[in-house]
Amino acid sequence: MKVKKDDGIEEMKAVWMEGDDRVKMIDQRFLPQELRYYTAEDYEDIHKSIKNMMVRGAPAIGVTAAYGMAQAEIQGENIEKSAEHIKSARPTGYDLFHAVDYMLDNPEEPIKAAEGYAEDVIEKCRKIGENGAELIDSGDNILTHCNAGALATVDYGTALAPMRIADREGKNIHIYVDETRPRLQGARLTAWELYNEDIAHSVIVDNASGHYMQRGEIDMVIVGTDRIVANGDIGNKIGTYEKAVLARENDIPFYVAAPATTYDESTERGGDIPMENRGGEEVREINGSPITPRASPVKNPAFDVTPAEFITGYITEKGVFSSKELKKMF
Amino acid sequence: MKVKKDDGIEEMKAVWMEGDDRVKMIDQRFLPQELRYYTAEDYEDIHKSIKNMMVRGAPAIGVTAAYGMAQAEIQGENIEKSAEHIKSARPTGYDLFHAVDYMLDNPEEPIKAAEGYAEDVIEKCRKIGENGAELIDSGDNILTHCNAGALATVDYGTALAPMRIADREGKNIHIYVDETRPRLQGARLTAWELYNEDIAHSVIVDNASGHYMQRGEIDMVIVGTDRIVANGDIGNKIGTYEKAVLARENDIPFYVAAPATTYDESTERGGDIPMENRGGEEVREINGSPITPRASPVKNPAFDVTPAEFITGYITEKGVFSSKELKKMF
Repeated sequence: MKVKKDDGIEEMKAVWMEGDDRVKMIDQRFLPQELRYYTAEDYEDIHKSIKNMMVRGAPAIGVTAAYGMAQAEIQGENIEKSAEHIKSARPTGYDLFHAVDYMLDNPEEPIKAAEGYAEDVIEKCRKIGENGAELIDSGDNILTHCNAGALATVDYGTALAPMRIADREGKNIHIYVDETRPRLQGARLTAWELYNEDIAHSVIVDNASGHYMQRGEIDMVIVGTDRIVANGDIGNKIGTYEKAVLARENDIPFYVAAPATTYDESTERGGDIPMENRGGEEVREINGSPITPRASPVKNPAFDVTPAEFITGYITEKGVFSSKELKKMF
Repeated sequence: MKVKKDDGIEEMKAVWMEGDDRVKMIDQRFLPQELRYYTAEDYEDIHKSIKNMMVRGAPAIGVTAAYGMAQAEIQGENIEKSAEHIKSARPTGYDLFHAVDYMLDNPEEPIKAAEGYAEDVIEKCRKIGENGAELIDSGDNILTHCNAGALATVDYGTALAPMRIADREGKNIHIYVDETRPRLQGARLTAWELYNEDIAHSVIVDNASGHYMQRGEIDMVIVGTDRIVANGDIGNKIGTYEKAVLARENDIPFYVAAPATTYDESTERGGDIPMENRGGEEVREINGSPITPRASPVKNPAFDVTPAEFITGYITEKGVFSSKELKKMF
């Protein structure tokens, strides 16, 4: 991804290795106000960076864990203990577990293995971008929700990859960025990525996306996803379902961009995906400042389920598929 | 409305007259963190209180203006000049103009006239509450958007009136309160009113209402409105359209609560309602703290249009009507 700095534009990744044993990353907690880096000196720091959400997004967390495992091996740490500690940083992290296990299975050349893991993630995103860009016409207005960008996937992103590629192909596009309450990943992170790439965009409150769809000012919706289940239903950031219903009501195509590994054939339908409810502070306070009465109860579901019937297509590194084609392909 | 204070619960209005020439009001800018009052000593203060949004909500603004006109007359001010200055506080305020003109037409007993105006507003809301409460069953979960409560209408509210009355009738209800970005009137004001009335409620981000509808946890939606036009379309706070589409998708009744004066027969359809776009700071900053990249453009539409086809019924002081009945009734 491109990042604007005082001395010019730099090509960067969300996380990378420096030398043989330092893992560096953009500390996403300070974006967009400040571009700060965090250096993980050892596997304890890797655990901390994942747990404290300096790095976020399942693929980026996976790559961070892979680099952390390589680092631990180079530093002569106990590999089993390092693996266990890194895994414990996010107890429900599928990509995190997968990356650590991959490194345990490939102990011979750890740095090469970790770099290979990272390159595979990036290459899949690039292909998602190419496949998705074919759906985009010059002049299109595209809505996205949350951040499924380079920050979440090391580079390119999933939902943002088609926009990046379309822009590089010279297509003239404009992105509506849902701010994505409660954690504001759209306003904070997606807007920051698009600003750095010089892709035209407008930040809107989540309440406004229906309004722009109704007025015919949105041509397409592209979102990422945490999980695609057997029947094509997806689990994704709270609010995704609302956008999908509004898109269908207004005859706007609704695409989900994700690597094929996101397809979980063992789960039958969206209703079977376990739903995380997070603490109320994310709703009660913004940047530490209270917005609700102290005594008012809050509900804070982190994800929702979007049924397959609302999804026009799944943009993957292997092509763009309908929900009926998913089972055949994977 | 009930307001909890350190020494017990007090029955209060959003704005009232104290003595012959002081207009007092809850300064809504400090809610819910602090219950502060503002005293308007003269018509200049009345102008300021409306302009600076110490008082908000068209009916409450109208009553404030009526009291301000009475005050100006008692204080021997030039009545035409006072009227002009008060009107200029919100150049698009229909209720504001109406209230000032009403006072100009009734100069004989100004305080009596202003109190009559206020009582009429409150009585209409009480009747909206009674009519709406008939639609509510014990055990119902009701979603509302923005603040169409006592703070906006001096007492009872429009959308909140049926909930207040149902609660007083002993019905066991629970309210989902959309936080209502960008200005957060749900999280700040509606939650505060419900907390004070001891009505069970949960504040949710705007992104979560679809999720709860999909899960069958919402039985009914009630919102207020700024304008009902001839064909039954309404203009209301941004995000109302999204809730209406989601309600229909999930077979949930969607009601609009408003006094009959909100019906504007001279405007044919919702698309003809002029739409206000507000400054970007409301999106960019929350409680003064920035959330977007400084250079990212922002769009901030304040209202949207909900077509009549999504509206189950209009709860008015004269009864509950369908869109087809509206024209007949008014």
